[in-house]
Amino acid sequence: MKTSFGSDNHSGVHPSVFKALEDANRDYQLSYGEDEYSSRAEDVFRKLFGKDARVFFVFNGTGANVLCLQALTMPYHAIICAETAHINQDECGAPERFTGCKMITVDARDGKLDPSLVKPLLKGFSFQHHSQPKVISISQVTELGTVYTPEEIRRLADLAHEHNMYLHMDGSRLANAAAYLGLPLEEMTTRAGVDALSFGGTKNGMLMGEAVVLLRPHLAENFKYIRKQSMQLFSKSRFVAAQYLAYLEGGLWLENARHANKMAGYMAECIKKLPGVTITQQVESNAVFAIIPEKARKKLVEKHFFYTWNEHTGEVRWMCSFNTLKSHIDSFINDLKITLS
Amino acid sequence: MKTSFGSDNHSGVHPSVFKALEDANRDYQLSYGEDEYSSRAEDVFRKLFGKDARVFFVFNGTGANVLCLQALTMPYHAIICAETAHINQDECGAPERFTGCKMITVDARDGKLDPSLVKPLLKGFSFQHHSQPKVISISQVTELGTVYTPEEIRRLADLAHEHNMYLHMDGSRLANAAAYLGLPLEEMTTRAGVDALSFGGTKNGMLMGEAVVLLRPHLAENFKYIRKQSMQLFSKSRFVAAQYLAYLEGGLWLENARHANKMAGYMAECIKKLPGVTITQQVESNAVFAIIPEKARKKLVEKHFFYTWNEHTGEVRWMCSFNTLKSHIDSFINDLKITLS
Amino acid sequence: MKTSFGSDNHSGVHPSVFKALEDANRDYQLSYGEDEYSSRAEDVFRKLFGKDARVFFVFNGTGANVLCLQALTMPYHAIICAETAHINQDECGAPERFTGCKMITVDARDGKLDPSLVKPLLKGFSFQHHSQPKVISISQVTELGTVYTPEEIRRLADLAHEHNMYLHMDGSRLANAAAYLGLPLEEMTTRAGVDALSFGGTKNGMLMGEAVVLLRPHLAENFKYIRKQSMQLFSKSRFVAAQYLAYLEGGLWLENARHANKMAGYMAECIKKLPGVTITQQVESNAVFAIIPEKARKKLVEKHFFYTWNEHTGEVRWMCSFNTLKSHIDSFINDLKITLS
Amino acid sequence: MKTSFGSDNHSGVHPSVFKALEDANRDYQLSYGEDEYSSRAEDVFRKLFGKDARVFFVFNGTGANVLCLQALTMPYHAIICAETAHINQDECGAPERFTGCKMITVDARDGKLDPSLVKPLLKGFSFQHHSQPKVISISQVTELGTVYTPEEIRRLADLAHEHNMYLHMDGSRLANAAAYLGLPLEEMTTRAGVDALSFGGTKNGMLMGEAVVLLRPHLAENFKYIRKQSMQLFSKSRFVAAQYLAYLEGGLWLENARHANKMAGYMAECIKKLPGVTITQQVESNAVFAIIPEKARKKLVEKHFFYTWNEHTGEVRWMCSFNTLKSHIDSFINDLKITLS
Repeated sequence: MKTSFGSDNHSGVHPSVFKALEDANRDYQLSYGEDEYSSRAEDVFRKLFGKDARVFFVFNGTGANVLCLQALTMPYHAIICAETAHINQDECGAPERFTGCKMITVDARDGKLDPSLVKPLLKGFSFQHHSQPKVISISQVTELGTVYTPEEIRRLADLAHEHNMYLHMDGSRLANAAAYLGLPLEEMTTRAGVDALSFGGTKNGMLMGEAVVLLRPHLAENFKYIRKQSMQLFSKSRFVAAQYLAYLEGGLWLENARHANKMAGYMAECIKKLPGVTITQQVESNAVFAIIPEKARKKLVEKHFFYTWNEHTGEVRWMCSFNTLKSHIDSFINDLKITLS
Repeated sequence: MKTSFGSDNHSGVHPSVFKALEDANRDYQLSYGEDEYSSRAEDVFRKLFGKDARVFFVFNGTGANVLCLQALTMPYHAIICAETAHINQDECGAPERFTGCKMITVDARDGKLDPSLVKPLLKGFSFQHHSQPKVISISQVTELGTVYTPEEIRRLADLAHEHNMYLHMDGSRLANAAAYLGLPLEEMTTRAGVDALSFGGTKNGMLMGEAVVLLRPHLAENFKYIRKQSMQLFSKSRFVAAQYLAYLEGGLWLENARHANKMAGYMAECIKKLPGVTITQQVESNAVFAIIPEKARKKLVEKHFFYTWNEHTGEVRWMCSFNTLKSHIDSFINDLKITLS
Repeated sequence: MKTSFGSDNHSGVHPSVFKALEDANRDYQLSYGEDEYSSRAEDVFRKLFGKDARVFFVFNGTGANVLCLQALTMPYHAIICAETAHINQDECGAPERFTGCKMITVDARDGKLDPSLVKPLLKGFSFQHHSQPKVISISQVTELGTVYTPEEIRRLADLAHEHNMYLHMDGSRLANAAAYLGLPLEEMTTRAGVDALSFGGTKNGMLMGEAVVLLRPHLAENFKYIRKQSMQLFSKSRFVAAQYLAYLEGGLWLENARHANKMAGYMAECIKKLPGVTITQQVESNAVFAIIPEKARKKLVEKHFFYTWNEHTGEVRWMCSFNTLKSHIDSFINDLKITLS
Repeated sequence: MKTSFGSDNHSGVHPSVFKALEDANRDYQLSYGEDEYSSRAEDVFRKLFGKDARVFFVFNGTGANVLCLQALTMPYHAIICAETAHINQDECGAPERFTGCKMITVDARDGKLDPSLVKPLLKGFSFQHHSQPKVISISQVTELGTVYTPEEIRRLADLAHEHNMYLHMDGSRLANAAAYLGLPLEEMTTRAGVDALSFGGTKNGMLMGEAVVLLRPHLAENFKYIRKQSMQLFSKSRFVAAQYLAYLEGGLWLENARHANKMAGYMAECIKKLPGVTITQQVESNAVFAIIPEKARKKLVEKHFFYTWNEHTGEVRWMCSFNTLKSHIDSFINDLKITLS
């Protein structure tokens, strides 16, 4: 494929990250997180998320989410999330299977929870017949490309903590949210009350690897066993840690995310001028959601790869990535114009 | 670390495999196994393991083993393995947790099961109070460096099949066994009656990635859901498939394994001449197990990294790898001589 | 408590059932289902549900439901049910924990599913990221006291079977449905396409004990292991089988249910004449759902035990039982009148 | 069956317990543990096991054991028990499935653990690849009919607690141990360091029902959710609580156990005089284990029901019960003599 607007994981690896892999491929290193790169990477995470942050590298986003949720719950708990959440829609039931918890979902038009949506679900506490609500899980960026402000996160964290619950953040695209908000990571996570975070790298230029970031130290106490038992412990761990070092130390994570966001913004600007296309969600990150006529959609997908988000409404999702070029978008818009005419 | 005899996963990535990663880092590719590399790699597996083989890439060895076992069992089943088996000793209980099955272990001096050890455990069939034996799981190479012949495998497979059970093979070092036996992979797996195989790459020169190879097609029917739900599905899947292509197509897997085995053989030859060291297992792959005096052991480990296998007996394990050099061994033997004197 | 309209399990044991326990308390009997009563009881079930029915006694309703669902699913499946379903609301997440499946819930005003509500959820088949829909689960009688006709059940069964799915029925109050419909059990279960049934006894006059009735023989093949491993196998099994014999052989199950239904009907008749009370659901079994003014509700509950179903709307649930007396209801209605005035 | 020496659960219900069921079958009672009998029964347990004891009634012995173990463990833990333990041999893998833990078994000739057997297994602490030892589980009476002294229990408890582990006791026949030792229950449980206890009733004269007794209050904090989610919560809970009241308040539990033990003692005395029969275990409770010639065994089992414990050695188990009569034994011994001659 020459280009894809299907997913930000259709892109490859950023050259700087790749270089880091190459540099790490020397000598011998201990495995299973005891290599030199891992301890250095952990320091970097503490700089970004605060001194109490504990980081554990895992393989993929589903792993990061499920392991966070395992650290936060017992099987008789319930997890509240948006109906559109990745943990609800796209993990083949992994959260239920590996936590044993009930998922309680909320219809949220823009993919964002807020206290008014969550409060009605905070019931049944101490009633033995009901799964006990224990976690509010939000995605930052959401699956619909929208972004929570730190104040919005804080309100959900306060609500959770008032009920002796935790706030989990699925941050597979947290970099894109940071780019949009223009704020330090710590401010939108640790200081906003997040208890456990899945921090993604794969979708923003890494080969693979995600990070579980536990922001309350007690959550980390036995986490290494959870990770190992849950089949998420690397042997040649240097190769994920080295990637994160390259990704985080020089600001590549932010640079990549800014670029992807910018491309999506540019795409949205172009589209707004076109009659017959309706942008359906605020463009706050690297995704553009839109409704286009079915005929146009079918023609366009022959030339550019993307997914239909909703077969009923004809809504599509166009994702930009760290290596999306303006020329790709221009070509795409051009073809879109043709299909619409 | 300049060298390590601690584990074959203390080594990095073989240059040819690394080159394949680099080559795959072009353009856009579909994710989650739908990339072009994955389908090509699947073809290669069918050449090596027979046309009925179905391959699914996963992240690590624990993942490969546990997912194989999931495909073979229901929670009320029992899995029979050597007490020393990786699935019993080194996976933090992942098999029990994710299959729900009982593990029944056998003391096997050399890490190898045989029908006479297994038969006494094949009981309680149809008795509702007992976990029903369903899988015999063997490691090829075993955790003690020993190798099963195809005939030995066949006898265990026959025993399993007579009881409506399956034979699973943990082949995290299958390449080393193939190098030792001088036989095609198919002959020592598919044709020997193996039903499901974990085929490793990481310990023999890959960056990461293991393969679940299902040798009975019906086992593969719903396996994609097992893999996804069990958090073992790559997003940028091209990067594991491309590694396997480089590893398998030109015979690198065998070359690397031969080299590692040869180095272990050389090490064993040198050691045999030394008084005060006892080699405790047949050296049939890339591991040397030996007992050395405690004083010598403590001195030696200051200069060369390795693990003590058994604190009680003082038995140590020295592993060679695809990039172990003869000069490493010479230096090691030299230091060993000094510590012994 | 002199009386309770709180639940049909606030009643004790019907004298005939109790007598059967007494009669069974003689001599010695084998345990774990091998007693003489169990095989006789199994015959009775086959008379009621058809010759292919396989029955397994378990301890309680949650056990019956969860074990049925285990027999029907793999962990990567999804179970569709009404939001009000007992399996969703009142089992503390047992279905998720013990099947691993995702629960997909439907808002159904009267607690009843129908094809138009279910069809939109039958999607994502063969898409590896999604839990695969496998079971439609309905409650007969529903948790809101309403009853499915055999035609309604058949339509859901057909829908399920067209998609290679199963229909499960939570029949903890199936007797009350049979009493309402005036039809043989087989007609409203086996012949209507139900694949697995939880058939309750406790709420209708037994001391304890529920039955898993599997209507497709292949589902029963390994069910005894599921029951034992799931901690639902009686040791002194004669004491559940003997109850079911007394309950089923002479028609006590139907007599008790008819009585309870009749009492609820009588209560509803009385209530309809009262201004200020709104009956909110069709009275088709032994439950009356109604909204009464908060002040009246608080006074009434001091004299008669019942539960508020919905704190927000003030809806209450009044349950009748096999031993509810007309005089209880008269006294209740009298007090209700007083509180309303 | 006129008599059975097969199992103490081949007996029915003691008349006093049955009377209590009858007495409880009056009026209406709240369900799910909120009935009046349950709170009274809880008081009785505190008198017997100390004021910190928390009791939760469950359905059966497997339920009691597995729920205790759930309260004590996380899935990455290991449970150490005798190879012969009920939790290892006779629960169809329920402990593995519902705790996720690894079971580590010990060969113990008489079914009893001791520190010298357990210590070698207390290793791998803090090593992420190993299931972390967390529970030592003992059976009192053991499955081989032998009894731990309080000092023996204390030594195991101390060993457990030194390693931040718990001691669980499967007390399905605890009454028989108390009868043998002539000591108060508290002295052989709470004061001996037991942390969680499964206390049986079914095998000693109850219809059904077992008790989880948690002797460290923190273990009980969320236990009600574990019980409910694990499908072990009675609806008509009065009927288990009332049984326990009848069983415990007047000392019936001890009387029944003394009788059963006495009968086993008498049987053993008689057998010792017979040539050709070897008693294989100390007779310290209500079981006699013996080896008799195969021919005799086959003849005897035609007249008296019992199980062969070990097909290889011809060892049999003869169980006495609360309602075993001396005349049963005399008749049995007589037939045994005939078969031996």
